[in-house]
Amino acid sequence: MMDVDAPGDRYVVGVDYGTLSGRALVVRVADGAEVGTAVHEYRHAVIESALPGAATPLPPDWALQDPEDYRDVLRHAVPAAVAAAGIDPARVVGIATDFTACTVLPTLADGTPLCEVPELRDRPHAWVKLWKHHAAQAQADRINALAHERGEPWIGRYGGKVSAEWQFAKGLQLLDEDPELYRRAERFVEAADWIVWQLCGVETRNICTAGYKGIRQDGRYPSPEFLTALDPDFADFVDKLDGPLLPMGARAGVLTAEAASWTGLPAGIAVAAGNVDAHVTAASARALEPGHLVAIMGTSTCHVVNGPDLVEVPGMCGVVEGGLSPGQWGYEAGQSGVGDIFGWFVEHAAPAGANSHERLSELAAAQPVGAHGLIALDWWNGNRSLLVNHDLSGLVVGLTLATRPADVYRALLESTAYGTRMIIEAFVAAGVPIHELVVAGGLTSNRLLMQIYADVTGRPLSLIGSAQGPALGSAIHAAVAAGAYPDVYAAAAAMGRVDRDVYRPDPERARAYDALYAEYRTLHDHFGRGGNEVMSRLRAIRNAAVERSAAEATTPLEVVA
Amino acid sequence: MMDVDAPGDRYVVGVDYGTLSGRALVVRVADGAEVGTAVHEYRHAVIESALPGAATPLPPDWALQDPEDYRDVLRHAVPAAVAAAGIDPARVVGIATDFTACTVLPTLADGTPLCEVPELRDRPHAWVKLWKHHAAQAQADRINALAHERGEPWIGRYGGKVSAEWQFAKGLQLLDEDPELYRRAERFVEAADWIVWQLCGVETRNICTAGYKGIRQDGRYPSPEFLTALDPDFADFVDKLDGPLLPMGARAGVLTAEAASWTGLPAGIAVAAGNVDAHVTAASARALEPGHLVAIMGTSTCHVVNGPDLVEVPGMCGVVEGGLSPGQWGYEAGQSGVGDIFGWFVEHAAPAGANSHERLSELAAAQPVGAHGLIALDWWNGNRSLLVNHDLSGLVVGLTLATRPADVYRALLESTAYGTRMIIEAFVAAGVPIHELVVAGGLTSNRLLMQIYADVTGRPLSLIGSAQGPALGSAIHAAVAAGAYPDVYAAAAAMGRVDRDVYRPDPERARAYDALYAEYRTLHDHFGRGGNEVMSRLRAIRNAAVERSAAEATTPLEVVA
Repeated sequence: MMDVDAPGDRYVVGVDYGTLSGRALVVRVADGAEVGTAVHEYRHAVIESALPGAATPLPPDWALQDPEDYRDVLRHAVPAAVAAAGIDPARVVGIATDFTACTVLPTLADGTPLCEVPELRDRPHAWVKLWKHHAAQAQADRINALAHERGEPWIGRYGGKVSAEWQFAKGLQLLDEDPELYRRAERFVEAADWIVWQLCGVETRNICTAGYKGIRQDGRYPSPEFLTALDPDFADFVDKLDGPLLPMGARAGVLTAEAASWTGLPAGIAVAAGNVDAHVTAASARALEPGHLVAIMGTSTCHVVNGPDLVEVPGMCGVVEGGLSPGQWGYEAGQSGVGDIFGWFVEHAAPAGANSHERLSELAAAQPVGAHGLIALDWWNGNRSLLVNHDLSGLVVGLTLATRPADVYRALLESTAYGTRMIIEAFVAAGVPIHELVVAGGLTSNRLLMQIYADVTGRPLSLIGSAQGPALGSAIHAAVAAGAYPDVYAAAAAMGRVDRDVYRPDPERARAYDALYAEYRTLHDHFGRGGNEVMSRLRAIRNAAVERSAAEATTPLEVVA
Repeated sequence: MMDVDAPGDRYVVGVDYGTLSGRALVVRVADGAEVGTAVHEYRHAVIESALPGAATPLPPDWALQDPEDYRDVLRHAVPAAVAAAGIDPARVVGIATDFTACTVLPTLADGTPLCEVPELRDRPHAWVKLWKHHAAQAQADRINALAHERGEPWIGRYGGKVSAEWQFAKGLQLLDEDPELYRRAERFVEAADWIVWQLCGVETRNICTAGYKGIRQDGRYPSPEFLTALDPDFADFVDKLDGPLLPMGARAGVLTAEAASWTGLPAGIAVAAGNVDAHVTAASARALEPGHLVAIMGTSTCHVVNGPDLVEVPGMCGVVEGGLSPGQWGYEAGQSGVGDIFGWFVEHAAPAGANSHERLSELAAAQPVGAHGLIALDWWNGNRSLLVNHDLSGLVVGLTLATRPADVYRALLESTAYGTRMIIEAFVAAGVPIHELVVAGGLTSNRLLMQIYADVTGRPLSLIGSAQGPALGSAIHAAVAAGAYPDVYAAAAAMGRVDRDVYRPDPERARAYDALYAEYRTLHDHFGRGGNEVMSRLRAIRNAAVERSAAEATTPLEVVA
């Protein structure tokens, strides 16, 4: 791709597990040059309506995956990437992976997923729960209420609320709804760690997901007393979670013969500890120094930034010591729907003739700020930061007969920018300095969106210099695990890439956005902080109506005329 | 059409002037049989972007029409309807008209529209301001504030607020923005009365528009002191408005030779006083007795009901003695966007494959109540009753990635039903009894919509028995003006038609809607009654952005990357 292979060059492979596919990237150790890549789409994608081959519908808000789809990425994407690079596989010295999170599965003691145990295959809880499985809000509410009641020291590390997406909420949902399966689950493991287990045959845990998704703080998980108070049968949950803990960039083991046969890579090369797609991108964007906030913008957005000190930020996803890289406090925040919302609009709300991102962006870019008269709340997929509530939903206000598709589309782009500004301001207010805003991910190709983010935040935007930020970040960690660099800081400096201040805010537009952002904040607080909990009630009414309809097969409205 | 012409039969012609076209209907005097009809589309439809032949854009919220389009309806639709009926025009004994309102124009003393004075043709204020011209909100606000400050006795007759759509707001906008043209306007006349003037050559005013749109109460218009306090130059406004006042069903004059030549009808036949499309429909739906509320549902909905006593209903459009028919107090309320909103959705917010009313209704009808999880505020075209505020705008809450077009469509249908329920409850609470809900207008053909209205209001729905309610109502008034019946009550009993209790509420669905209606009310009051005036601010921001952009030809967002 970029360079010609030279005889002495060594390579690493980074594998990025996304929501719908996995990508392998072959990277030169010396300078981070990306020499070959390939993608493998998951056969079952996201399992939302029914289990494969089954007719029984899954309840609302479920999102599952099939772990065999993850192995297929190793079988297909890795050899294809090496072939595309045109290099000798023998020159590959290490492999690392990153994953969506919290994506988690119950397994036997040897790592066999419960959904691969034949008699358990028809049990929904036996499958991988994807990050966006949002059916454990009731469990998250119980965890949060009890944590505050007991004054648990760790709750402040998560902005005051743990998410329904995380290990404890998903684990408690498993216990609540299928207690027998909970008992059969000898291990409850992040997919990020499970895939490493598949590669090197050794069960490990990485500091990043253990901290951000597993409530591990100050060397401890939540206490047995806390778990017992949640449910006496939940007292053993940490036993299922815990395992040998590795810092980021550590070597988890070496490639097994079986995994070598899948990938075509040499057995015995270094396999790095598991990692998370967003977090690993801080390395590829050369943003590991404190105060460089990376927003990884795709279907959802994840914000990560290192800070020198521990502070508690209301509504952040979490702060973990060494969570991004050793020796710093890694902070995470997120928006649970971003590109997903724009995609929803194009697919389900845009008329023929204006139903592509390109056309809508072109029309929307021609408008002065505020000319559409709209504000949206970007909660189509709930709100992760700052409200940590997946029962919230989207809102659009200001619609008139003169409203056109590009107006709403632009309002949706802007709403996500307001959401990012809320997060940045929360960090700064709490004492986490933000010096630079670096953007990565697929949405960086939308120039209108990028300019709106610069104008709304009033900050210049730097762009990651790679289209494959997570896979490059994994490759950087593979190089560290292989011993090619002393630590991730040195590896990121040599192999990462960033273009500084690509988009600059326009002062006039930034002022105009200040007024609209004030309206967004007012609506945000009214609907998100108790002024009117209509969104939660509408969701409860919806779920009850759908469930009653499915259960009783009642007839809906019959027109009698 | 329905019957064979018999030698002794007499006929009347009703002409209904709508927003986009005019319809003529030939009706048999004896029994209301509709024997021939024809429609003529207005050449200029609604003038919203620029005057005909001009490039200068009109400001936001303007809506004008060309009075020559109204004469063309007489020239084309009337002869075509008579021809379709296959009757001898000599048997037509009267003609009556009904019009959208408040649709109003400035004229010379002889009735010549100012826009037909050559040197005034390029002045936007010289044209007809259509009912949905919504650019006089600032003037309405001044009128309302002053009325309350001075304790004007008439303000309570309009629910505490006069509308930006009405004669005084539109007249004051004319004075504010083009004072020279205001002086040139010797008469300021409802189109309902202007078209009668064209037919019989006599200037008259009808009690209905004078009362509902012209603030005439207890025999008086607002006082000269009030007008002077608004603006000293506005003191003579009532001189431009006033004229010989006629009750509903009265004869305004006889058809002139010129109008006979346009229509092909005999000169000298009775021409009835002007009337309003909604109000005249109460006669065709046989709903002139007290307590029979008629909802005329088209692009917007107008609600009219007679009551035996005078009471003041907060948020109603108005109460006028004899406004619907002599001897009763006629009450009016309205929703300024209904079918317009559904049409907007199909045209601008529905993807290919789900972009017809039929398909969306079919999909939406299959849902249990509440299954879409949405609530909308039906204010795409502002809110006439109960809030009387055209700066309000539409809102949708509850949107998720699982929301589909039929979900939003159904939520929009429901939102207008909630709006109607608000109006019914306001009447009942104020002491205007509502015994029956009768629905008329083009939307009666949507069976899903009708069933939703029955379920949401918890009341059976009666349907008018004519597809041409306004034109039939005009024909009934023409028969009275021609002396064929002693009064409109007798004429309506003989010529009107209604089908009782066609749609009945389902108790279970009605209960489910009670919960959703409670959510609607909460949002309604929050956004409509001062909780958050974001809609007004967004509209102001929008208008300023559009005007600045037009004035300065400033460049909108320029993508700099």
